[in-house]
Amino acid sequence: MATDSLTEAKKRLERAYDPDAFEQAATVFAQRSARYLRLMRPRPAPALPWAEPEALIDVARSWIDREPPPIVEPDDTATSFHRLAETILDHGHRIHSPHYMGHQVPPPVPVTGLFAAIGSLTNQAMAVYEMGPFTTAVERVMIEKLGELVGWNRGGFAGICTHGGSLANLSALLTARHRHDKESWTNGVDSAGPTRPAIITSGDSHYSVARAAGVMGIGTSQVLKAPVDAERRLRADSVRRVLDEADNSGLEVFALVASACATPIGAFDPLKELADVAQERGIWFHVDACHGASVLFSQRHRHLVEGIDRADSVVWDAHKMLFVPALCTFVLYRDAAVSYETFQQDAPYLFDADNPGMAEYDGAVRTLECTKSAMALPLWGLWSIYGPELFEDLVDVTFALGATLAKLLEEKPDFQLMHKPDGNIVCFRHVPEQLAAASDEELSRFQQGLRRRLLESSRFYITATRLEGNAVLRVTLINPLTERDHLEGLLDALREEGGALLTEGVE
Amino acid sequence: MATDSLTEAKKRLERAYDPDAFEQAATVFAQRSARYLRLMRPRPAPALPWAEPEALIDVARSWIDREPPPIVEPDDTATSFHRLAETILDHGHRIHSPHYMGHQVPPPVPVTGLFAAIGSLTNQAMAVYEMGPFTTAVERVMIEKLGELVGWNRGGFAGICTHGGSLANLSALLTARHRHDKESWTNGVDSAGPTRPAIITSGDSHYSVARAAGVMGIGTSQVLKAPVDAERRLRADSVRRVLDEADNSGLEVFALVASACATPIGAFDPLKELADVAQERGIWFHVDACHGASVLFSQRHRHLVEGIDRADSVVWDAHKMLFVPALCTFVLYRDAAVSYETFQQDAPYLFDADNPGMAEYDGAVRTLECTKSAMALPLWGLWSIYGPELFEDLVDVTFALGATLAKLLEEKPDFQLMHKPDGNIVCFRHVPEQLAAASDEELSRFQQGLRRRLLESSRFYITATRLEGNAVLRVTLINPLTERDHLEGLLDALREEGGALLTEGVE
Repeated sequence: MATDSLTEAKKRLERAYDPDAFEQAATVFAQRSARYLRLMRPRPAPALPWAEPEALIDVARSWIDREPPPIVEPDDTATSFHRLAETILDHGHRIHSPHYMGHQVPPPVPVTGLFAAIGSLTNQAMAVYEMGPFTTAVERVMIEKLGELVGWNRGGFAGICTHGGSLANLSALLTARHRHDKESWTNGVDSAGPTRPAIITSGDSHYSVARAAGVMGIGTSQVLKAPVDAERRLRADSVRRVLDEADNSGLEVFALVASACATPIGAFDPLKELADVAQERGIWFHVDACHGASVLFSQRHRHLVEGIDRADSVVWDAHKMLFVPALCTFVLYRDAAVSYETFQQDAPYLFDADNPGMAEYDGAVRTLECTKSAMALPLWGLWSIYGPELFEDLVDVTFALGATLAKLLEEKPDFQLMHKPDGNIVCFRHVPEQLAAASDEELSRFQQGLRRRLLESSRFYITATRLEGNAVLRVTLINPLTERDHLEGLLDALREEGGALLTEGVE
Repeated sequence: MATDSLTEAKKRLERAYDPDAFEQAATVFAQRSARYLRLMRPRPAPALPWAEPEALIDVARSWIDREPPPIVEPDDTATSFHRLAETILDHGHRIHSPHYMGHQVPPPVPVTGLFAAIGSLTNQAMAVYEMGPFTTAVERVMIEKLGELVGWNRGGFAGICTHGGSLANLSALLTARHRHDKESWTNGVDSAGPTRPAIITSGDSHYSVARAAGVMGIGTSQVLKAPVDAERRLRADSVRRVLDEADNSGLEVFALVASACATPIGAFDPLKELADVAQERGIWFHVDACHGASVLFSQRHRHLVEGIDRADSVVWDAHKMLFVPALCTFVLYRDAAVSYETFQQDAPYLFDADNPGMAEYDGAVRTLECTKSAMALPLWGLWSIYGPELFEDLVDVTFALGATLAKLLEEKPDFQLMHKPDGNIVCFRHVPEQLAAASDEELSRFQQGLRRRLLESSRFYITATRLEGNAVLRVTLINPLTERDHLEGLLDALREEGGALLTEGVE
């Protein structure tokens, strides 16, 4: 190729950038994606057409290793795109299927995919205002709205979009670390001194909290996991007890992390009483509300996060219960000033020191990230088209599904509900008659075998977790197209697969 | 709304998920986006239609604050989407304009936007294999290909996709920290002890390197910036000198970070001789090749990264010189084993402990992130349609533009080229006759005023930086549709705006 002239190279590039070729391929995208959505009803397609990783790696590699067909006319691009789109859709996870009841990742409201597409195509990369002026404006407006829902007054608070909850928890905890020790950014963390910095949270908080401590030089051993109560909620008395012990062992706890809700069973920690403890002890109060903050849209459920306005920082994934594509996470700070203190930089090729007023609009001064995608655009688009009532509907309908499943499970003698769900996460066990006298260990093995079997059957997609050491089945009812019949269908499928498993023997 | 029945809520949600409504809106997307691409020629549209942040915030807010029109028929969604898409495209940064010569963010090859769209619409969120089976396979295959281009043998190396270069540099440096001190993850960083951990790099390395040190508890003061040579390259002798000094001041340098290329003028550090130093001293060799690794596709330019195969870790942004939408960054490790050591987790609701063979395919065990978007999909699609020669063309054509601009600048007495460019980043000053005797400080002020004026005129989009304290103009020629005529046009525009600025007076 290098022997080729640059003129030839330019001609090839003109073809790759041809607007007609794009329009034809984009039309294929429109039709083919609509067909994917239609596939979900009236009879749902398998959520996850199961295949082993190496088999799919071979498929993906075969497209790369072949000699690509010549692209001469605009519709050659569309033809190639069509074949590749088929491959992706055939082998992908179809989370728009009502049989998808897996992780806390929603089927996006379809039009959001188009806003994501515009952001990607035009590449509004938002390290600085100039590189994504309108998408920066959009991000600011969404932060205004979400912060106001938290209960704060416009002007006082601030926030930023970042790629995902793990990065968001890390960002908020870095801010907490900074407030505790303003030298830590420049001088490093002193974790071997007489007062080691520490964080307190529950054993049910998301693993990214401990991970953040590992990343930021605090050390995961300095993450104190206070015990939860019978409903797996972190209570003030438990936190106070662990804080007292910490005082005696040379730990300086600088942040309390609450979960709204926690991942295992979706329990909402009581934020008001935890805010009291944080205030009493003068420590940073961070609320990981990635999943649960969205209840603020719902009159029925917003009581679950009462007290969230007293947090110093809140993180909120729009790509969970606001039904936009991953990723779109908001880090919100009650006090706007702190959001500018954490990250410090010196990058004259990026930040325009001669326009100090403008720096306030440059995202990269307030997040670990430099180039960002236009994350908030799909949320803004969805809100603009449907209004905030759509988010209330999404929370209400999926939370109601959680209650419906809980009720069904309680009615069936061969199922065991593990908790009364606060929302749309439900953990349970299948206990067929033959296993009525089985030990917890045997039951654990059975749930795992059953989950695996259901997965490989491609009939439903659900997950599993461990509660007090015991494996249980776990679903997140995050598809608003799922109905009571599908839930009944899940229980039937579990019975059938469970029966077959018992016949063949649990490995 | 809460007084509404759930039945009503479900009906509204059915409308939001209606495949017909989606197809109509997606068709609008196809047509309107193609029109955006056509706008770039034959006469280029303004790259950045300049507006003040608060003005755009008002526009974005106005859509959120209004009462949304009722959505009854499928085409109501398309109508609303159309109006919003117009707003985004009218106020966005049009980096497909050949007058875009700004940051290291490319105009994506348009079809990549459609692959991003499929990934978003279907939400293949890849914390674990199950949640994005095919997109996980795609990521693995792209890592295979890029690692082989680095010069490593399949099977020996490994990698992961992550959201952006800053996170990627942090990830690689966390791995280096772990190799240096295996207790740091659990016990924290001891930055106050007799041997403080430190990193060595050049003063020109990306600000995210120092930021990573701030984040991970090392402290930015322990980032040693070795001086660069006249061509702004980090040389082995400079590194050795600073390392010797560090030994004497109680610093334990565990990582050497080279830039390929560095951001200010795009200089490629000599990797072979730096690899020698790292090997001599037994320290981790990390290459930040976010911008420059893509020259591996080019027979003309791959010599610039000779020795990259000796790196312990390499980061590579496909969303720079591989022309896919932000974000798509690869963190590559020469030794596959280390990539599993850095992050440690305990999340039974996520990782399936009963399928140990499967964990290898779960992305979240090897990156700070949990939920991820299907980042590698656009790159895989582009490669599948056009083959790797397209990437060679993109590098060759844009790098040739760098050389063309350098030549033009050398020919004009009123422009001053600051360096001989290695690639497509070029720094220069405009020095009109009236300023022939001006001080560096006056010239700096003039370049800044000129850049600002050009920006607000919306005629071209370029950036600025500081070299040795002096402000200079800086362009990245990263749009393959830019031609020699546009470069001439830029210089003419600078002359005109410069003349006006001199008449009105530099503030």
